[in-house]
Amino acid sequence: MSLLTVGSVAFDALETPFGKTDKIIGGAATYITLAASYFIKENNLVAVVGGDFPQSMIDLLEEHGVNTEGLEIVPDGKTFFWSGKYHEDMNTRDTLITELNVMEHFDPIIPGSYQTTEYLMLGNTVPATQKLVIERMNNRPKLIMLDTMNLWMNIALDDLKAVLALVDVLTINDEEARQLSGEYSLRKAAVKIMEMGPKTLIIKKGEHGALLFQGEHIFFAPALPLEEVFDPTGAGDSFAGGFIGYLAKTDDISFENMKRAIIYGSAMASFCVEKFGSERLVNLTQEEIVERVQQFVNLSAFEIK
Amino acid sequence: MSLLTVGSVAFDALETPFGKTDKIIGGAATYITLAASYFIKENNLVAVVGGDFPQSMIDLLEEHGVNTEGLEIVPDGKTFFWSGKYHEDMNTRDTLITELNVMEHFDPIIPGSYQTTEYLMLGNTVPATQKLVIERMNNRPKLIMLDTMNLWMNIALDDLKAVLALVDVLTINDEEARQLSGEYSLRKAAVKIMEMGPKTLIIKKGEHGALLFQGEHIFFAPALPLEEVFDPTGAGDSFAGGFIGYLAKTDDISFENMKRAIIYGSAMASFCVEKFGSERLVNLTQEEIVERVQQFVNLSAFEIK
Repeated sequence: MSLLTVGSVAFDALETPFGKTDKIIGGAATYITLAASYFIKENNLVAVVGGDFPQSMIDLLEEHGVNTEGLEIVPDGKTFFWSGKYHEDMNTRDTLITELNVMEHFDPIIPGSYQTTEYLMLGNTVPATQKLVIERMNNRPKLIMLDTMNLWMNIALDDLKAVLALVDVLTINDEEARQLSGEYSLRKAAVKIMEMGPKTLIIKKGEHGALLFQGEHIFFAPALPLEEVFDPTGAGDSFAGGFIGYLAKTDDISFENMKRAIIYGSAMASFCVEKFGSERLVNLTQEEIVERVQQFVNLSAFEIK
Repeated sequence: MSLLTVGSVAFDALETPFGKTDKIIGGAATYITLAASYFIKENNLVAVVGGDFPQSMIDLLEEHGVNTEGLEIVPDGKTFFWSGKYHEDMNTRDTLITELNVMEHFDPIIPGSYQTTEYLMLGNTVPATQKLVIERMNNRPKLIMLDTMNLWMNIALDDLKAVLALVDVLTINDEEARQLSGEYSLRKAAVKIMEMGPKTLIIKKGEHGALLFQGEHIFFAPALPLEEVFDPTGAGDSFAGGFIGYLAKTDDISFENMKRAIIYGSAMASFCVEKFGSERLVNLTQEEIVERVQQFVNLSAFEIK
């Protein structure tokens, strides 16, 4: 099956306890499409960059099978730029610079060739833009997944609720789930959030794994305890890309298959954090993915006699 | 098989967002022996209380099969008393009162009838006292498990290291593992801590589950996402009691069986937090435990095709 990802393609400059980077390729849609590229062939991207975005980075995406027909280039514009610094614990970070640039007036145009895409991933961006994408699809995709963040809960809650009513799967972190629902218990939070629209909710807990909720069903996916988290940037997006990429590949949106998809998503996130930016994600083999997924099996399998 | 638990039996006064209690029965050894009582019959206790400790509470322990021959009563002494207040998130708490009382000069006497006990659980207390218990056993138990806390890392690190060299299983929380090892990565922390003595390490992560390390093996046990955590007091001790109780019952200390034991421990902890103090732990049925363990299976089982 095919996937359409709409979201940011950006420059990031990162600083972690292990070092710092110059401007490297970043953005939610970059990580999502790269992670998904290991699962599917029809990997459609809608995003916007400025004239400063190098052709070599577009080539990199295309080499991974990403269809960039929907990647708008604004010749006299500048690409979205984010710079951040991670603290020692890698769970908290300071944003140093945010320059929206061409993202400020992002008008997502869906090419005609994308209109039959079955799986739609709305990367974290302005909720009204996410809603516009859904409205611009001539046929409703089989599955719509949305990622968002606390910023939009603070400044665009009504818009966020409007788009939540239209999606199938929402992915947010634990703090965001608590903020959105007003409930501390994640189980209670999940019930309230699923009432807002999405039948399936994924609560990401970083190094503590992820929870998958659907109706009465709950699944707890572990995170792989890593020797070292080198750079957490893009982990959540790699997770989302692996998750929806696996769903699109298998074209099975049952709860049982979503459990598997979460393990594949977790595997992609575990690769992502091993190196700076998308460095690790662009150099993976299918064998490495199979081996990593087996590590998740070993990590969490037990048998009650 | 038989279990010997050495640790505190105390009065607790608790305040949570859901209410507050008067002095109720508490202490590490109380929770450990109560949780273990659902698995084993020979459930030996060594602890000390004051003359103010009511016979009805001793009866309660005995009704659950706890052997109180080793429970020393100091007629003119007062029982260890702890009072604490939990914050809204239930993960942080303030200690309001700590009165060591008879615990200050706790001299653990091991009755002769306890000397053949195969499984030894050293509840959180002064490390030198824990070491004394091991030295007072005529034969080394088959398995020695120890719980400790950050306080002893701060004020008695050398004593703690001396006893760690003698035990098989150590259980601490994630912050304590980081403090003890000086490593942020739990995987690196585990390697360093296992070099201090214990071949098996359990890192408790509260609502995020627990990690079991042994050599190269790692197992990630989920925590049950609960509607409400009513009172977290005793959760870690109930976990330990369920874990070692299950090991003693099955008399199998293989890594595979320790995985099962962690699930049983997690189940006991999940019961414990449902009510104040030990209220829920004293009223469990085997059916409820089987059902709860099945919930853990449902929560974490997945199959990679």
